[in-house]
Amino acid sequence: MADIAILTEVQLRQSVTLGPQVLSVVEEAFRLLASGKVIMPPILSMEIEEANGEVDVKTAYLPGFDNFAIKVSPGFFDNPKLGLPSLNGLMILFSAKTGLVTALLLDNGYLTDIRTAAAGAVAAKYLAPKTVETAGVLGTGVQARLQIIAAHLVRPFGRVLVWGRDRARAEACAKDIAKALNIKAQAVSEAAQAVREAQLVVTTTSARKPILRAEWLHTGLHITAMGSDQAGKNEIDPRAIMLADLYACDRVSQAASLGELRAALTAGLMINATPPELGSIIAGLSPGRTSESAITICDLTGTGAQDTAIASHAFAAAQQASVGTMIKT
Amino acid sequence: MADIAILTEVQLRQSVTLGPQVLSVVEEAFRLLASGKVIMPPILSMEIEEANGEVDVKTAYLPGFDNFAIKVSPGFFDNPKLGLPSLNGLMILFSAKTGLVTALLLDNGYLTDIRTAAAGAVAAKYLAPKTVETAGVLGTGVQARLQIIAAHLVRPFGRVLVWGRDRARAEACAKDIAKALNIKAQAVSEAAQAVREAQLVVTTTSARKPILRAEWLHTGLHITAMGSDQAGKNEIDPRAIMLADLYACDRVSQAASLGELRAALTAGLMINATPPELGSIIAGLSPGRTSESAITICDLTGTGAQDTAIASHAFAAAQQASVGTMIKT
Repeated sequence: MADIAILTEVQLRQSVTLGPQVLSVVEEAFRLLASGKVIMPPILSMEIEEANGEVDVKTAYLPGFDNFAIKVSPGFFDNPKLGLPSLNGLMILFSAKTGLVTALLLDNGYLTDIRTAAAGAVAAKYLAPKTVETAGVLGTGVQARLQIIAAHLVRPFGRVLVWGRDRARAEACAKDIAKALNIKAQAVSEAAQAVREAQLVVTTTSARKPILRAEWLHTGLHITAMGSDQAGKNEIDPRAIMLADLYACDRVSQAASLGELRAALTAGLMINATPPELGSIIAGLSPGRTSESAITICDLTGTGAQDTAIASHAFAAAQQASVGTMIKT
Repeated sequence: MADIAILTEVQLRQSVTLGPQVLSVVEEAFRLLASGKVIMPPILSMEIEEANGEVDVKTAYLPGFDNFAIKVSPGFFDNPKLGLPSLNGLMILFSAKTGLVTALLLDNGYLTDIRTAAAGAVAAKYLAPKTVETAGVLGTGVQARLQIIAAHLVRPFGRVLVWGRDRARAEACAKDIAKALNIKAQAVSEAAQAVREAQLVVTTTSARKPILRAEWLHTGLHITAMGSDQAGKNEIDPRAIMLADLYACDRVSQAASLGELRAALTAGLMINATPPELGSIIAGLSPGRTSESAITICDLTGTGAQDTAIASHAFAAAQQASVGTMIKT
């Protein structure tokens, strides 16, 4: 059998960084999604209640790609008590011609972090107002930082407002962002302020009840909601989705069961039965933002297409840098 | 992060062999399935038509097990033209407490072969007549051989009849079986003979139209159908399922969409709406064979529970034998 490349988190962090190249890789994945030629089965999901854990498996076949990825993402939420991160996982690259394993990417969730932040930036690129002076972020975790860093690549704002339930964490997050981007960033006490004063807002929490209220919407605002990826989660007031000039999502079938769209549908609010997907907007098949004053929302649940794209990119980058271990099978 | 054990196919073949221990591991997995405490989500399945390929992902959480497996099984059916086997894949063991990767089992499908054959033997143990003089097998591939070798552990028959579409392959298969078990084994020209003269029949083909006719059924017969694991496959005449005294399967939800049960339901034949599962028979919660003369059928589609059980067993065996490579992540 063929050899398998094994790449560790350290090697993958060296090979793949959140920059323009990764953004274009993820943008291309969304564009392909709009072609109708991507094969992306429903997510496999298993909850292990007694361990306060869950595991998701995503995959997608992208036409023209030599490999497809299968990504396994465990989330075990008591891990911090053991000094371990909640989120982990790996990606496996398989030859799209033979099904043989090409590479094992032992990234512990790093590539997921990167491709998720990149998707937020791609959403901002196509949907945020041209001019963003202030960005707001709800949530204070890894994605709060990465989403803002990625969005800054496409909308070079000068000021960031960070809101979280825990003030100290919000301050730490603001400090990290200010340092990473060399811009002004501050924690705010009210989520309302982070939304009202911003032209671009990213919600990055695991909230199960809306944290972003419809009454905070204002002209010239884009919101990317990336926290909800499970049936129980909901960050955005369903009325906000109804009130926005444009609601788009990464994949309708996923958003309707796992994203903000689910809560809006459950609330019985009338919304476009088949909202446009981000890929369709990128490909020019659906209109995006129509004016600087429009209110837009993009609902991201995370797609297997992104995983295949980022894993392929990471593998190519690692090969170019000659890193990784080969295992004979 | 913790270290990850990597085990290759060669190491796994050395550590795990098809014997009584593996049978009891798989039997225990089925028994647990009947407890209602196993978490086993639907199979993730992706077909890549342009490569004549498919990939399935299975998993299950078994209570009391330290780890759960996620198994990826690609089947790329043009591989033989390239000198490669059609079936490949790997299993990944994750801690059931933290979700961290415990081990990568690069088995290229070997553990699937073993746990599938073991399931056939467990079905025979509980459902075949006590006395089996002749076993029949339809199909001439790896599973034809392994199913007979495994079944022989629980019903030490003295004669095997092998039928396949290709006579030369049937003869090669019979020769291999005769050598492995030191018993009589011969190829037959008609599938009818392999069924009519046997008390235990295993069907191991990827047939899409029934190859085992209802009119061949006779008293004192058990059939295990393990070939069908996809919506398009069907080995057993749906009327046979209706005529049998007992029809059981590994998992009703899977059999109804992927197994022989699907074809029977599609044919509109009246059968028990909720047939018993093998685990329920093992656990004594449902009756199994009620007399030596009964006709029984067991429909196996392959469960994630078997995968977690065999992967856990393989990992323990490898640890005991101190084989495998540790990778720091």
